[in-house]
Amino acid sequence: MDTLNIKHYMQELGRNARGAALAMARADTGTKNRALLAIAERILAAQDAILGANAADMEAGDGLDPALKDRLELNARRVQAMAEGLRQVAQLPDPVGEISDLRFRPSGIQVGTMRVPLGVVGIIYESRPNVTQEAAALCLKAGNAVILRGGSEAIRSNNAIARCIHEGLDAAGLPPAAVQVVQTTDRAAVGELVTMNEYVDLIVPRGGKGLIERISREARIPVLKHLDGICHVYIDDRADLEMAVKVAFNAKCQRYGTCNTMETLLVHERVAKLVFSALIPLYEREGVEIRGCEKTCELVATARPATEEDWHTEYLAPILSVRVVGGIDEAMDHIRRYGSAHTDSIVTGDIVRARRFLAEVDSSSVMVNASTRFADGFEYGLGAEIGISTDKFHARGPVGLEGLTTRKWIVLGDGHIRV
Amino acid sequence: MDTLNIKHYMQELGRNARGAALAMARADTGTKNRALLAIAERILAAQDAILGANAADMEAGDGLDPALKDRLELNARRVQAMAEGLRQVAQLPDPVGEISDLRFRPSGIQVGTMRVPLGVVGIIYESRPNVTQEAAALCLKAGNAVILRGGSEAIRSNNAIARCIHEGLDAAGLPPAAVQVVQTTDRAAVGELVTMNEYVDLIVPRGGKGLIERISREARIPVLKHLDGICHVYIDDRADLEMAVKVAFNAKCQRYGTCNTMETLLVHERVAKLVFSALIPLYEREGVEIRGCEKTCELVATARPATEEDWHTEYLAPILSVRVVGGIDEAMDHIRRYGSAHTDSIVTGDIVRARRFLAEVDSSSVMVNASTRFADGFEYGLGAEIGISTDKFHARGPVGLEGLTTRKWIVLGDGHIRV
Repeated sequence: MDTLNIKHYMQELGRNARGAALAMARADTGTKNRALLAIAERILAAQDAILGANAADMEAGDGLDPALKDRLELNARRVQAMAEGLRQVAQLPDPVGEISDLRFRPSGIQVGTMRVPLGVVGIIYESRPNVTQEAAALCLKAGNAVILRGGSEAIRSNNAIARCIHEGLDAAGLPPAAVQVVQTTDRAAVGELVTMNEYVDLIVPRGGKGLIERISREARIPVLKHLDGICHVYIDDRADLEMAVKVAFNAKCQRYGTCNTMETLLVHERVAKLVFSALIPLYEREGVEIRGCEKTCELVATARPATEEDWHTEYLAPILSVRVVGGIDEAMDHIRRYGSAHTDSIVTGDIVRARRFLAEVDSSSVMVNASTRFADGFEYGLGAEIGISTDKFHARGPVGLEGLTTRKWIVLGDGHIRV
Repeated sequence: MDTLNIKHYMQELGRNARGAALAMARADTGTKNRALLAIAERILAAQDAILGANAADMEAGDGLDPALKDRLELNARRVQAMAEGLRQVAQLPDPVGEISDLRFRPSGIQVGTMRVPLGVVGIIYESRPNVTQEAAALCLKAGNAVILRGGSEAIRSNNAIARCIHEGLDAAGLPPAAVQVVQTTDRAAVGELVTMNEYVDLIVPRGGKGLIERISREARIPVLKHLDGICHVYIDDRADLEMAVKVAFNAKCQRYGTCNTMETLLVHERVAKLVFSALIPLYEREGVEIRGCEKTCELVATARPATEEDWHTEYLAPILSVRVVGGIDEAMDHIRRYGSAHTDSIVTGDIVRARRFLAEVDSSSVMVNASTRFADGFEYGLGAEIGISTDKFHARGPVGLEGLTTRKWIVLGDGHIRV
């Protein structure tokens, strides 16, 4: 397709989505749940077809890098997990229609808000074909239509999954156009998707920082974006030592590659020696490389000096930068300067400092005496997660079904007029 | 100033604001209220200076159009209203720090959200110098810093008001840089303000549609925008006739120039004759011109035929477009097609239809048996209003203090780790 045809094609998807969004917004909870369960059934029944399509993607993507191929690959277990994910979303409470704060006003009218779908959501993602099912399930449950733009390397897998989604929607009497997979792999399609604000209400990019930055730059539609996860743990001098070691070890070592993993440890100078003597051997046993400030290097023989860049780096690897600080103010200054407003935690027994840290650290998740690894939609009880927002607007931190909705005002009267 | 200097100048304002925002976010409720009350005192004490500056603006703006001059002009009453507005904002509950939904999770952590300031707000407005005080008061109360860019015709008035604000902030121990007035009247300053996303978190344009469209196009920062107000009242055939006439008359005639004024009346065909016979004479008495669909023109001798453009028009004047429809579905189709998602109301005695209208009309305010004129921050109990959003994101409809804040997640544990 040339550029003009891509524009026409994308606009047509947009129009279809807008029409389908209307039906989705009207669909009751039972109908949406029936669709989700029907899709789950279809996916299990079509396991062979999905794995066959995936094998063809894998073969065509022979030259891809191994990490990408790993994310691309489906197997029977992953297909079953997709069906399970759909069933879980069906069990979540329906956010649509929830009426809050309905109160009488002195004028006699009753005013409140009602939760309603956003409309049309555009999802842009790379390789992982199970995003097709995950994102579609959440968008459907929240009463939205969705346009999915996966990676070109996964197009066969995505289409095989989309076929099951369409059948499931149809079985429940909902329009198949509620979930559309972009068929052209031309990058111009993304440029069109993120600018056609008459048809799309929210863009959710899922992928590397490069993808997200590019999309944010081009978009004329709100983008739910997740950039860096440079998370900190600050161990205060009033921390319980055992607790501090446990939390700081877990925050780094429970998993290295996740955005809520601690990348920088800040330790109060009064307890630095004690903390390091207990904690550093644990890190060393796990093969975690320590890059420290000057004081850290004095206390930790195996530490290499950290550069300015280290404090800005999301390693996503067994590397940890460590800084000794003079107290909570210096710790919060460091977090403000180098952090990414994702997740930061204080370990302290002092309630005044805990309250200050909670109030003053401007991150999407702020924690007291807990591992940063808890910053996650499932751990927070959202049931599912469409993404984690590092923006301040609309939704911040883990975003679940509610982030795919908005609120409108409702007013009830008995013929009330304004005087 | 040349373009490069404007860039440097605006960046400096941005840095100052970012620093002041930190202090504002930390300021407790009492301190913020003391600042607001001190500003009110200063404004009353400086009444002569403010009116003098305003007289100079009026003189310099001799060639301006009368409507603009009317908005520009201050008098003793308007200055006193400014002080009163500040006192009212001081009395509003502080939204910052509110903790909601703090619940234990199966893992043992306690998870909830805390309301926090947005950071730095940029306000772009025309002529009305009292916006300087209004916008500053709301931003301060919500713990934000603000950069104000008023019209060049009001710069002396704005600076005189800003001086009072700075003195009041200083008296309460808060940084005067929390409220900065852009001193250059070059339009390039606006371009810089709406793109420096490292320093500004939200843009609120207050002014005509042209201004708002231009800013939305240029902005690289979320914009709280208010475009058209094409509001509808649908009179159902199950409406109480007297109630319908009362609501439809009020929605049009209580004030013509406001965004929540009804611009199009939709009437069920079964009651059109009856409704028109009671309602049209009332409109005619007020000099409201009727532009009707074919059926309306058959029933109303004085009606002119409405063109396609009429259904798209926000008259802000004593003109009303009227359409006879076959029922609620046709009414909602019309609203979807021609409305601006601002405010729409149904008059009906039928609860099933009322519930459908509430659920299915996708406007920022949806009403049952009430005049559209109620769509207003004060009427809704927000206490004050920074603007009305016709967007779906973050804040929808009238936006008060809460719209100048966001929520972050908080997690409380006792050394909890993820397993």
